Amino acid sequence: MTRLLAVDWGTSSLRGALIDAGGRVLEDRHFARGILTVAAGGFPDVFESSFGDWMTPGTLCLIAGMAGSRQGWREAPYCACPAGLADIATHLEWVEPGRIATVPGVSIERRGVPDVMRGEETQVFGALLLLGLADARLVLPGTHSKWVDVRDRRINHFSTWMTGEFYALLRQHSILARTLPAADPAHDAGAFDQGVEHALHSQGLLHTAFSVRTLSLFERMPADALPSYLSGLVIGEELKAQALDHGDTVVVMGTESLTARYEQALAHLGVSARRVGDGATWRGLRAIADTVATA
Amino acid sequence: MTRLLAVDWGTSSLRGALIDAGGRVLEDRHFARGILTVAAGGFPDVFESSFGDWMTPGTLCLIAGMAGSRQGWREAPYCACPAGLADIATHLEWVEPGRIATVPGVSIERRGVPDVMRGEETQVFGALLLLGLADARLVLPGTHSKWVDVRDRRINHFSTWMTGEFYALLRQHSILARTLPAADPAHDAGAFDQGVEHALHSQGLLHTAFSVRTLSLFERMPADALPSYLSGLVIGEELKAQALDHGDTVVVMGTESLTARYEQALAHLGVSARRVGDGATWRGLRAIADTVATA
Repeated sequence: MTRLLAVDWGTSSLRGALIDAGGRVLEDRHFARGILTVAAGGFPDVFESSFGDWMTPGTLCLIAGMAGSRQGWREAPYCACPAGLADIATHLEWVEPGRIATVPGVSIERRGVPDVMRGEETQVFGALLLLGLADARLVLPGTHSKWVDVRDRRINHFSTWMTGEFYALLRQHSILARTLPAADPAHDAGAFDQGVEHALHSQGLLHTAFSVRTLSLFERMPADALPSYLSGLVIGEELKAQALDHGDTVVVMGTESLTARYEQALAHLGVSARRVGDGATWRGLRAIADTVATA
Repeated sequence: MTRLLAVDWGTSSLRGALIDAGGRVLEDRHFARGILTVAAGGFPDVFESSFGDWMTPGTLCLIAGMAGSRQGWREAPYCACPAGLADIATHLEWVEPGRIATVPGVSIERRGVPDVMRGEETQVFGALLLLGLADARLVLPGTHSKWVDVRDRRINHFSTWMTGEFYALLRQHSILARTLPAADPAHDAGAFDQGVEHALHSQGLLHTAFSVRTLSLFERMPADALPSYLSGLVIGEELKAQALDHGDTVVVMGTESLTARYEQALAHLGVSARRVGDGATWRGLRAIADTVATA
């Protein structure tokens, strides 16, 4: 059980935490140095200036997220599903053997079409440990939401949903943008619920999105309520496709405001949301490090 | 039976045709003077300069399209479904009584959510007359596709699908734009078919759209084929929601290239496409004029 430098190096941010053998976070740091800001060949210098002083002899560094992609520091090819902690740990890509490694993402293929995630797998494994679960259904809402099925501690299945991005496209670039207020008004829970209900009982977002325009045209909804209504439409569309049953529980891991919206939307289906505390990524990386150490 | 000046005045273009009592088009004109180019109060002048010389005594002018909207020349409020030619003809909005009128659009409401169309109703009535049909299922593909159900010559039901606009948003403004070639390559029928199939057998566009990225990432499809694949995804998504049965026939009214794509996509469902010749709007306006004349 070594001292661990756990790093989450994504597209737009770089976070690191120094974690002792018992899993305690001693210190953490955050930098606006996502991989998009790093030139080819520039990763060692950014790493050294950010965390060099923590890399004392015997410290292991594991890096989750897009730093392990083709555009990152060192590509760690995707592990195919089903994938558990041990599968991830045996497929680390060593930048410096025994010292610094990138963590692979996970891939799946259905009917000849692949799907991928990178970074979320570590969050998921950490969440399972924090919650003490071996089987779970999880959603990580965001620009590209991930729905993940875990069976016996392994990621059995997952899928990507471009829900946050569709919202932003419709909000900013579609004909609906003319109807919506330029600045974001406060969240309107009633309008959000109307959007979720309409999505759950209609034939698809290509059709329901147009209702943002007609509800405005017929003065059925004030302009300030329309962004929340649209948010309900896209999130409801995502939930509708998940084949959830009344009484199910879903683990929701996102920002506070998004988690609250998903909780509100899931309630329409009689599904409970379970939250995870902070530190899922750190907990996941600590567990991968422990697996490496005992292998 | 009077001489008719039939006008189709839409958002981005202005077309007019001079039609004799027998329905023969004597002459037609086209101007880049859609209603978006006309300042408030400017409609009479644009009309006069475009068609004034055709408005000899006894000539009736009927104007379909967005010129009849709130932002147009004279608002003709929507007729509620079910709506037939006679309903439209009795709700014309007269700019000059007995001489110039705008044609109302059609509206419908389900579960408190309205839907609208304006201009397409006239095309639909014209198509029914050109094809000799009293009952039909029609699609008018485009930026906002319309699906229309006609029973006994009346528009019984319709719905709007933002299919063309979603394609453009994903093509130009989404993360997928980075993967797609900047210029549009030639239509790739095989990739289009793959997109349609994936949409028909998957859980929704929020999910399937991401496959444009992963197919590229895993080098399963060349970049030049991706725009056609994406087109297949969005059109397939639209068709999937229409509850079509094997053996059905759908009347398709669009540009040549879009009509061909819908025909290709409908074939995946065992549905036949029936085309309509040119002049559906002129035929529809002639029929409305005849209804007015005999009322």
